[in-house]
Amino acid sequence: MSSAAPAFSPAEPLTVMGAGLVGSLLSLYLARRGHPVQVFERRADPRRAGFQEGRSINLALSDRGWRALEGVGVADDIRQVGIPMTGRVMHDAHGALTRQPYGQDGQAIYSVNRGHLNRRLLDLAEARPNVRLRFGQQCLGIDLKNQRLDLLDTATQHAHSEPYTRLFGTDGAFSAVRGALQRTDRYDYSQDYLEYGYKELTIAAGPAGAWQLEKNALHIWPRGQFMMIALPNLDGSFNGTLYFPFEGAESFAALRTPAEVVAFFGRVFPDALPLMPQLATEYFHNPTSSLVTIRCYPWKHADDVLLLGDASHAIVPFYGQGMNAGFEDCRVLNELLDQHGDAAWPAIFGAFQAQRKPNADAMADLALYNFTEMRDRVADPRFLLQKKIEGKLAAQFPGRWTPLYSQVTFSHTPYAEAWAAGQRQDAIMARLMPHIRAEADFDQPAVQALVQREMADF
Amino acid sequence: MSSAAPAFSPAEPLTVMGAGLVGSLLSLYLARRGHPVQVFERRADPRRAGFQEGRSINLALSDRGWRALEGVGVADDIRQVGIPMTGRVMHDAHGALTRQPYGQDGQAIYSVNRGHLNRRLLDLAEARPNVRLRFGQQCLGIDLKNQRLDLLDTATQHAHSEPYTRLFGTDGAFSAVRGALQRTDRYDYSQDYLEYGYKELTIAAGPAGAWQLEKNALHIWPRGQFMMIALPNLDGSFNGTLYFPFEGAESFAALRTPAEVVAFFGRVFPDALPLMPQLATEYFHNPTSSLVTIRCYPWKHADDVLLLGDASHAIVPFYGQGMNAGFEDCRVLNELLDQHGDAAWPAIFGAFQAQRKPNADAMADLALYNFTEMRDRVADPRFLLQKKIEGKLAAQFPGRWTPLYSQVTFSHTPYAEAWAAGQRQDAIMARLMPHIRAEADFDQPAVQALVQREMADF
Repeated sequence: MSSAAPAFSPAEPLTVMGAGLVGSLLSLYLARRGHPVQVFERRADPRRAGFQEGRSINLALSDRGWRALEGVGVADDIRQVGIPMTGRVMHDAHGALTRQPYGQDGQAIYSVNRGHLNRRLLDLAEARPNVRLRFGQQCLGIDLKNQRLDLLDTATQHAHSEPYTRLFGTDGAFSAVRGALQRTDRYDYSQDYLEYGYKELTIAAGPAGAWQLEKNALHIWPRGQFMMIALPNLDGSFNGTLYFPFEGAESFAALRTPAEVVAFFGRVFPDALPLMPQLATEYFHNPTSSLVTIRCYPWKHADDVLLLGDASHAIVPFYGQGMNAGFEDCRVLNELLDQHGDAAWPAIFGAFQAQRKPNADAMADLALYNFTEMRDRVADPRFLLQKKIEGKLAAQFPGRWTPLYSQVTFSHTPYAEAWAAGQRQDAIMARLMPHIRAEADFDQPAVQALVQREMADF
Repeated sequence: MSSAAPAFSPAEPLTVMGAGLVGSLLSLYLARRGHPVQVFERRADPRRAGFQEGRSINLALSDRGWRALEGVGVADDIRQVGIPMTGRVMHDAHGALTRQPYGQDGQAIYSVNRGHLNRRLLDLAEARPNVRLRFGQQCLGIDLKNQRLDLLDTATQHAHSEPYTRLFGTDGAFSAVRGALQRTDRYDYSQDYLEYGYKELTIAAGPAGAWQLEKNALHIWPRGQFMMIALPNLDGSFNGTLYFPFEGAESFAALRTPAEVVAFFGRVFPDALPLMPQLATEYFHNPTSSLVTIRCYPWKHADDVLLLGDASHAIVPFYGQGMNAGFEDCRVLNELLDQHGDAAWPAIFGAFQAQRKPNADAMADLALYNFTEMRDRVADPRFLLQKKIEGKLAAQFPGRWTPLYSQVTFSHTPYAEAWAAGQRQDAIMARLMPHIRAEADFDQPAVQALVQREMADF
């Protein structure tokens, strides 16, 4: 943030629709630059007692998210309540474990509580005199021509209109702001659902809040056509998520009674079942949610509306990058404001969508790709051997071979570049692996000669 | 059509939303089977005086369309007012012509007038006692749960509701029926616009209604990043269509005055300009329309709503298959009724979408592929040489090598199979063409040896 006096009229207020993770972070960024910011949010204030979370309980924060939080000075604060996960632990059908580190020593992704993070960002935003938060404000429609938001106050059931000069749509995958853009001429839009749903389930804490699985890991029960994962919570529990087909022989539709659920978990997740005392209740109480990829373009309307986060690029959760990508949106927008000045909205909106759209598309592809990897490939010894060989390549060619996962998770390389490099690496590994039966084969002269030839072109 | 007594209750009426080309043909098919059919159409009756066409004036009917028309006994009647086009004629920037036949001797696509075809199908439908046509009925919404159509009578501005038991959505690319399905859970949907628009322009008839270009051809002015095409009309004129970028140095946005339009046409379409006396007027009077590909799934809701034609698979016009694909939908549905019986709607709706969806997706891809071919590749002598070599392959391997264009246009091979075969052929041609500099090279022993090897695997 520049300390110079702002080169724009501070009388022009900015409007943010949506005070979830991305909306609250964006509001902070804009307010720190001196803009008056008004934030509307459909739901009630999550800091009030009795607030019900509608979304996943914990999230994996990685380097892109941390960098964006650092930009508003809140990273250290959040890190204290995050749990570092340094690798994946795979649980096979007999309960045997395999561990795969995520990166190098000292690298980790962090399990953080969504509600805590959101509330902390809202506290910081509200503490600034130029931010006004207005909860319980449902967007009924937007008059793009007259720059007017039509809102319903959900407490009083009173409909009212609010003018805007710049509107930021951070209202998530089912964005009302994007809904207005979708009705404009020649608007590209797609929504694609997986045939899979997900359900959150609890792995209980042990006595005295002890973690009953390795604390500093993301746990995966890969079963080919379905999987369960679990992320640690501070209270010793883990938040488990079952990703399961909606229909078919092994599916949400096929498990109809508590007895069927318990028998199924006992067969496919035998080591987890004893740690899930509430399974039968939770399974029928908790919602089955769907998994959608949303793409659209443009992300702006004229020079006065801009979409960020899930509103413009909702992705499936399998790379743990949904929140990180949305936070990176905020960081990139802030850099464009530094670069162009706070009055140059037309240039900034244009540059923002031109830069972020290909990266969001790549991240959407990566997230779908990682679903197959997590539920199926990580159970394959050949795949795990390949990951070890890739680790050796990274050690032998530092800075020249960075594993795809590390580029996405522990770097700020644009997603589109990371994905393109990852696809080239996959092609090399497909040529290399037929010559490798065990880890030690990597050092054989013939294999090393092949490696040198491949790396000469890479 | 079976002559046996119908095995269903004729009291159950069928509802068709949309009386365009597909809706009117579908109504005829259903009525001929003995079903009572009620048809609602947003627009006024196109057979009344003063009706304004909103869509392209002429269309290219090919084998799939003819077969569907034969099924209701109207093909011969329409063929009398269609103009066979036996090939493409390319016009280069100096007015020089190149001709490429579409198929073998006797094969042609037919330029037919959209309005005439639609009015003829409506006349036939209305002549059946069990069909009721209701024009000026705009669909405001659909209550899928209670099976109720909410309609507005556009003449009286009176809103009313109509119950349905089976509803067929044939209401085009911006289908209101699909709109209702889009709001159901987990609905896959995409709309993708080209950066190109189109504008219809007239190439005038000569003295005494003479055609001033070759009558029995589809004319193309391929110019790389844009093109004009023209199809013959019965009155001696041609209906021209300019496909042109919306933005850029050579675009709709760049031509702002009549003088600029005339100068541009004089430079890029020098042989056409003298035949377009109304150009400057028409260019600014006629609309600039956009080009969209729409994909969605499922095409049915429960067992009581089914989408057909553009409502489920709107495509760009470059393969001339939009109407043909919609007509093929009707023919396939009729065959499924023959196969399953007229009461088996659940099985029929399921089988219809399972069979047609991959074919519609393939046709959408083919239509986009052909845009590049028409505006760019047909101007390349190497491409035209390749087409001649493909013709030789077709002659040498009858029944084994059918050119892609012929499979799409002159066969009933499912589009998905045609497209897959076409991609394999493209791969073979990419390996063959580097060995061929002229047409005669095809007969050289080395080339023939390569051909034999390729065809052994094909």
